[in-house]
Amino acid sequence: MKSHTEYLVFETKKRYEMVHITDEVEKVVERSGIRDGLCFVSPMHITAAIYVNDLESGLIADISEWLEKLAPARPEYRHHQTGEDNADAHLKALLLHHETTLPVTKGRLDLGTWQRVFYAEFDGQRRKRVIVKVLGVE
Amino acid sequence: MKSHTEYLVFETKKRYEMVHITDEVEKVVERSGIRDGLCFVSPMHITAAIYVNDLESGLIADISEWLEKLAPARPEYRHHQTGEDNADAHLKALLLHHETTLPVTKGRLDLGTWQRVFYAEFDGQRRKRVIVKVLGVE
Amino acid sequence: MKSHTEYLVFETKKRYEMVHITDEVEKVVERSGIRDGLCFVSPMHITAAIYVNDLESGLIADISEWLEKLAPARPEYRHHQTGEDNADAHLKALLLHHETTLPVTKGRLDLGTWQRVFYAEFDGQRRKRVIVKVLGVE
Repeated sequence: MKSHTEYLVFETKKRYEMVHITDEVEKVVERSGIRDGLCFVSPMHITAAIYVNDLESGLIADISEWLEKLAPARPEYRHHQTGEDNADAHLKALLLHHETTLPVTKGRLDLGTWQRVFYAEFDGQRRKRVIVKVLGVE
Repeated sequence: MKSHTEYLVFETKKRYEMVHITDEVEKVVERSGIRDGLCFVSPMHITAAIYVNDLESGLIADISEWLEKLAPARPEYRHHQTGEDNADAHLKALLLHHETTLPVTKGRLDLGTWQRVFYAEFDGQRRKRVIVKVLGVE
Repeated sequence: MKSHTEYLVFETKKRYEMVHITDEVEKVVERSGIRDGLCFVSPMHITAAIYVNDLESGLIADISEWLEKLAPARPEYRHHQTGEDNADAHLKALLLHHETTLPVTKGRLDLGTWQRVFYAEFDGQRRKRVIVKVLGVE
C-alpha cells in the first residue's frame, strides 16, 4: 500500500479558462508506481474546480456559458464588500465541485473513451496549485 | 490492504432515467471482502452521473424537473454543431457530479437511513458502464 | 495501511445553517494516526452537504442566497405530497454534493490557504450525523 503526492502549477493567461489536464494527471499516476487504487485531484484554491467531461471546443464553450448563466459575475455580491471582485468564481467552483476522484487500474487512469479531466479556472492570471494524490496498491 | 474493481452495465429503456443501484453496489462491496475503506462509483461516460438521495418517486420526479430547469434540453448548444444532440445531458451530469465515494464499515456500505445510490442516465437507450472500485483493509 | 472512522454530530439552531468544521475534521485526522492518505467527509442524511470554500461571512451569505435562487423553497414539489416540506433541502444538498474527499499529508489536512470545510445544513433543528473516514498509511 502506498500514497504518492504531487503538486501541479497552473497560471492561466485568461481570467476564465478550461485547461485539459488528463495527460499531466496520467503522468503522476505513472510516476506513483501504483497499480490499483484511487487518484484524487483538487485545486488548493476556492475559485477553481476540477471536472471530467468531453474534450470538444463547442461543449467547453457551452459549459462556460452555462456556468455564467447559473453563477453570473455581477457587482452586488456581499463578498465584494471585502474588496474582492470574484464571488462568481467561488459559486462556479462550488457548482462543478472542488475535487474529483479518478479510478486507477493496471497502472493507468481507468476512464471511459470520452472522459477527460479539466482544470476549471474562474479567477486566473495568477499562480495556482493543484494537488494530485494517488492511493493504492503497487 | 486491497483493491477490488467491478464494472456494472446499464441500458435504460428511456433517454432520461434514474436507476436505484444501492443493492448492486452493496453486492460489489460484499464480493470485495473489504471490511473498512472507501467505495468509488462512477459512470465511464460523460452524459450520466451518480447521486445519493431518497428513494421516493415524488422526489425523483422533482429532481428530474429541477435538472431540466437548470440544464434544459434545447437545440442551440454549440456542441450540437458536431452532430450531437445531447449537450444538456453533459450539463446535467456535471450538476450532479460524475462520481461519488461511499464509506465502507464492517464490510457494508456505511450509509444513513435514507441514503440510497442512483445511476442518473441523461442519454440512455444504449449500453453504458459504471466502475465500482473498493479500496480498504480486509 | 489503516482506516479510521468517527461520527460527528450536529444539531443546528436554525433550519438553514453553514457550520465551519475544519478544526473538527482536522482533529479526527490527528486521532487517526494516519500520515498520508485521504479523508472522506459526508453527512449521513440527504438534506445536508459538505463543501469547501472561504470562511468569510459575506461569501457565506452569497452562497446561501445563490442556493435559494437555484433550488428555492416552495410548496409545489411532488415530494411534499408525502407530508414532507423539505424538497428544496434535497436539491440544495445535491447542488453542493453530499460528500467531499480531502487530502492528508504529513498527518494533517493538506488544504490551500483559504480552503475551509463546511457542514451545510438545509433542514436542521434536529440531531444529524457526519461520517469522517481517514484511509492511508501510518
